[in-house]
Amino acid sequence: MSKKISIAIDAMGGDNSPDKIIEGISFFIKKNNSENDFILNIFGKENIIQEKLKKYNLNSNSINLINSNSVVSDEESPMTAVKNSKNTSMWNCIHHQLEGKSDISISAGNTGVLLVISRMILKMMNDVSKPALAGLWPNQYGVNVVLDLGANIECSEQNLVDFAELGSALFKSLFPKIKPKVSLLNVGSEEIKGTEMIKTASKKLKELSSEDNFIYNGYIEGNNIMKGDSNVIVTDGFTGNIALKTAEGTASFITKNLKKSLTESFLSKISLIFSYFSLKKFKEKLDPRKYNGAIFLGLNGPVVKSHGGIDSLGFYHSLDLCYKIVKGNLMNEIRKNLEHSKSVK
Amino acid sequence: MSKKISIAIDAMGGDNSPDKIIEGISFFIKKNNSENDFILNIFGKENIIQEKLKKYNLNSNSINLINSNSVVSDEESPMTAVKNSKNTSMWNCIHHQLEGKSDISISAGNTGVLLVISRMILKMMNDVSKPALAGLWPNQYGVNVVLDLGANIECSEQNLVDFAELGSALFKSLFPKIKPKVSLLNVGSEEIKGTEMIKTASKKLKELSSEDNFIYNGYIEGNNIMKGDSNVIVTDGFTGNIALKTAEGTASFITKNLKKSLTESFLSKISLIFSYFSLKKFKEKLDPRKYNGAIFLGLNGPVVKSHGGIDSLGFYHSLDLCYKIVKGNLMNEIRKNLEHSKSVK
Repeated sequence: MSKKISIAIDAMGGDNSPDKIIEGISFFIKKNNSENDFILNIFGKENIIQEKLKKYNLNSNSINLINSNSVVSDEESPMTAVKNSKNTSMWNCIHHQLEGKSDISISAGNTGVLLVISRMILKMMNDVSKPALAGLWPNQYGVNVVLDLGANIECSEQNLVDFAELGSALFKSLFPKIKPKVSLLNVGSEEIKGTEMIKTASKKLKELSSEDNFIYNGYIEGNNIMKGDSNVIVTDGFTGNIALKTAEGTASFITKNLKKSLTESFLSKISLIFSYFSLKKFKEKLDPRKYNGAIFLGLNGPVVKSHGGIDSLGFYHSLDLCYKIVKGNLMNEIRKNLEHSKSVK
Repeated sequence: MSKKISIAIDAMGGDNSPDKIIEGISFFIKKNNSENDFILNIFGKENIIQEKLKKYNLNSNSINLINSNSVVSDEESPMTAVKNSKNTSMWNCIHHQLEGKSDISISAGNTGVLLVISRMILKMMNDVSKPALAGLWPNQYGVNVVLDLGANIECSEQNLVDFAELGSALFKSLFPKIKPKVSLLNVGSEEIKGTEMIKTASKKLKELSSEDNFIYNGYIEGNNIMKGDSNVIVTDGFTGNIALKTAEGTASFITKNLKKSLTESFLSKISLIFSYFSLKKFKEKLDPRKYNGAIFLGLNGPVVKSHGGIDSLGFYHSLDLCYKIVKGNLMNEIRKNLEHSKSVK
């Protein structure tokens, strides 16, 4: 029997934790219990977590509870929060992973602190210039990987090239049957568009494009991110963060106005009876909880950040993402990509 | 009687021109004819335009047709297109404006060529470091001004400060009763967020904030652009272009999926009967044609770029924008803002 997939879970981070975390875990176990190929290492205050495990009838052999009395604070400044993070549930997750007892860590806690201590403890991989935060975006045919979403607000061409390697490895771990197509986010699709930095990165990606790691698909503009022609969209963390949040803001603006329109009159309310199932499917497809979880790539082990404000179903999706990433051998895919890059240089 | 508002219109630019341009003009005249306070100077091939004027029953004293035999090509490379642009309908518009015979120019033609020749002919204003392309975005309460949308892919702090001056002057010309609140687009709202360049620009904007020109409202994140708390959103042209296009792509992704959902089953089709008027209002509020028209600011006269692919109703909206901008004394507002800035320095 092959080694079980081992996930370190910070049960104390984010709003309404550990309740939503444990409920999310219960969804995960219900869905995957027949697999019997995972161990969930839950870090947090033992007595509270025990109580929540009882609440959600969780009594699984796949659960390993590890007491951590202290918790990373959301109120402290990032600097002091990092200083005081030792032996918190978040810290203990990453440390468990460093010791090889977990393959991946997940937390819904303070993003800044998670990025800093993950990097401090796990360290950057050789051959990676900067780690990146990657996210999943819905598109016409499924999902894209987009990175960096804000770990690095200033980037060099080499950083962008590394993000292409990391992002395409992530995509391959999630969708092993698809050869990822990589694009650089830019203000136009013609070769002359963009900064010198982007043009240089584009040249390098052209050289690296191959069946073995990824197919370079040229520049992509913001309006085409969700078209699904490229699987991995690479950009610096400043632009990526603004693109992601602008998309979120636009989606929320439109759905709010739609909801208002469809409930404003007696007639439109009646229409909801007839469109109930269609609108439900529409809502499900665009449910942000399905795309919850940003993946921190480029360290000696992956770390997943769940949205702090998301509910238990959202947390379940990011936990499932952890499971799929490890099952798809992400670290191996990254190493293969980086090896290929080195052989081209 | 005060001087009439004089608008130079390139009738030959964009898809399906001059037909859509002349139809757009007919909408404008129908709406505003009672005002009798404008002159529309139409530049293009006289015989074709005469024919279209007949088609749309346009026989107004407010129309002044000026023959221009050549047209800026969309197929040529931007460099050669600029070289060959002399005496085209687009060039003649801007030149008419330079001679003081028009207050503003509008074209749906090649954007790159329009920006280059506008700058070449009209020249930059003293005290403006770089001109910017501004656009209108819908928000919860009305519209925002967002700039730069792509005229300058690399910007300094002084450029961002100038964009704040230009954008708030534009907002005041459109909404004279509202004191514009200006925000800088950033990856977080805390003071420590963003690049050094953004932090320096933020400090300068704080110093310039006053009842006389604009109120500086701090940083804004992408998800809040459409909330309507700030009237003017300032960013560099790279980020602005990607934010705008990402918003467009997200809106089109959602509406496409919504349309698909609402027409996929017999029941959902029935629902459309009951929600018809509500959905129509929803569609109207978000109709991109209402926000058509990017305004080129910072030259010795404003130039408006209508989307090349938009229809006659879209062109009408950008023509109406020209009229409002001149009526609202944009150039005067810009000069007042720049004067105020100089007095603070």
